[in-house]
Amino acid sequence: MDQITVFAPASVANVSCGFDALGFCLETVGDVFHIKKTDEKGIQFKEIIGQELPLDPKKNVAGVAAQALLNQYPANCGFEITLTKGIKPGSGIGSSSASAVGIVYALNELMGLGLSKRDLLPFALEGEMLASQAAHADNIAPALLGGFTLVRSLDPMDIASIPSPPELYAAVIHPHIELKTAEARKVLSKTVAFKDSIQQSANLGALVSGLYSADYNLISRSLEDLLVEPKRAPLIPHFGEIKQAALDAGALGAGISGSGPSVFALTQGKETAQKTANAMAHVMQATSIPFDAFVSAINSQGTLTMNVDEIL
Amino acid sequence: MDQITVFAPASVANVSCGFDALGFCLETVGDVFHIKKTDEKGIQFKEIIGQELPLDPKKNVAGVAAQALLNQYPANCGFEITLTKGIKPGSGIGSSSASAVGIVYALNELMGLGLSKRDLLPFALEGEMLASQAAHADNIAPALLGGFTLVRSLDPMDIASIPSPPELYAAVIHPHIELKTAEARKVLSKTVAFKDSIQQSANLGALVSGLYSADYNLISRSLEDLLVEPKRAPLIPHFGEIKQAALDAGALGAGISGSGPSVFALTQGKETAQKTANAMAHVMQATSIPFDAFVSAINSQGTLTMNVDEIL
Repeated sequence: MDQITVFAPASVANVSCGFDALGFCLETVGDVFHIKKTDEKGIQFKEIIGQELPLDPKKNVAGVAAQALLNQYPANCGFEITLTKGIKPGSGIGSSSASAVGIVYALNELMGLGLSKRDLLPFALEGEMLASQAAHADNIAPALLGGFTLVRSLDPMDIASIPSPPELYAAVIHPHIELKTAEARKVLSKTVAFKDSIQQSANLGALVSGLYSADYNLISRSLEDLLVEPKRAPLIPHFGEIKQAALDAGALGAGISGSGPSVFALTQGKETAQKTANAMAHVMQATSIPFDAFVSAINSQGTLTMNVDEIL
Repeated sequence: MDQITVFAPASVANVSCGFDALGFCLETVGDVFHIKKTDEKGIQFKEIIGQELPLDPKKNVAGVAAQALLNQYPANCGFEITLTKGIKPGSGIGSSSASAVGIVYALNELMGLGLSKRDLLPFALEGEMLASQAAHADNIAPALLGGFTLVRSLDPMDIASIPSPPELYAAVIHPHIELKTAEARKVLSKTVAFKDSIQQSANLGALVSGLYSADYNLISRSLEDLLVEPKRAPLIPHFGEIKQAALDAGALGAGISGSGPSVFALTQGKETAQKTANAMAHVMQATSIPFDAFVSAINSQGTLTMNVDEIL
């Protein structure tokens, strides 16, 4: 194999009650890597399409993740990379994570290293750290592994894959405002009420139970965030209205995707997801803020090799 | 039906990372109610065997729970109750909960009310409140329903039943010291570090995942309590040594049962549970504190009607 095309999907982290731990993988929206082996060693970004990002591999997430892998597994060739960014950086649906996981997945395939997806996570994490200045795997784990994932621990890395019920869909709206992860971290309290902490835990435990047992009502009741959403909601214009519109449209729950500004909703069924996306879009249409909105099934596959025939 | 004999089992609440939410049901150890219908209306405790508890129904947990049920469903007869307390009050394995659930289960059967076990929980909760001065259902839910239960919310009551893997066993040691629930609540902090709160949540989410997926290693890694055990451990003499002995004997994890002083361990397999119980007992034997220790499978049935032939 001397070249490969890889799709690395967007993802939703935190999922209301699962701050820094829970995440799920989206379909369709994501980054596409096309990577060719070259005689000259090293990583070279030929082009980044769709977004203005530095081509210097030391300064972009994919380059740092790739270098982390190559430091441990030196290659006897180089790599020429074309990255088509389908995810806008800073949108809150795991843009940096997709770039980090896509490239390490591709290099593992191209070099025939035979590493498992789980083996690749630490290298992707190094790339992710460049973007968010904090190590967290709640986007890289679902983007790479697919489905829902729960990061119990980063060191040592301990990640549980959690099944998702067949009828679960997501609706996502991305208001085009800038909201830096670091800024969104600043508003969080250093301490929280014991009582709220216990309720948040119970919600996460119950959400995991609801996902395993395909109990959509339990999922709905558990999608409640006492600790983070109250702090971050003011950073996202019209968040309250967007969330209410989603719930009124029949969503099981809605909240901030990652550190925002995207807002996600989970629904039972694709039709309700579409109705929910429309309702959230309707709120944004009444503002002057540009946005995009989409609907997605839970992507159970995560990062994958694309059939090149398909894209030629 | 004019009389009934009911077994209401002991239970372990909190389970390290699931404070006030998670609990599981034990086998063999529990309270036995024998209740006869009488012509004279009202509740009358004929005898409480095994423990010195007030016969006045207003002053014991079972009486209060029974009255809560009878207030909503008046009976056209009375009830004469013989309660054999197999659980020592204040031991930390749900003594008051067993008494509360046993009597409401029995009255529902005797009166032919046809209520489900879940319907009975609110009445049992009223009894439990007499004992602990705080409403929490993390013992009454598993004692009544069996298995593992997660109390997401009390009002409205929202309780998830969580499956337990077939090889999961518990070892329990009860040091005979007095440790009041109210006292054990006093040592808890009103606030906790955000970081610890997030880790505790992740542990509970992962523990629920481990129980569903029968992943004993994940269960083991998740049995970690950052918020409560550090505060309460000093109240239980030799707790650290008992816990370490359990882990050294191969237990998946160990912690304080409810608000203590009992200490529980979870194991994979009955043999390891016995070894763990022996190891914990060995620590206590070196002290002057009397204790008892036992091993139990996870009781999936909860409170049940005993075949009277068996006990005659």
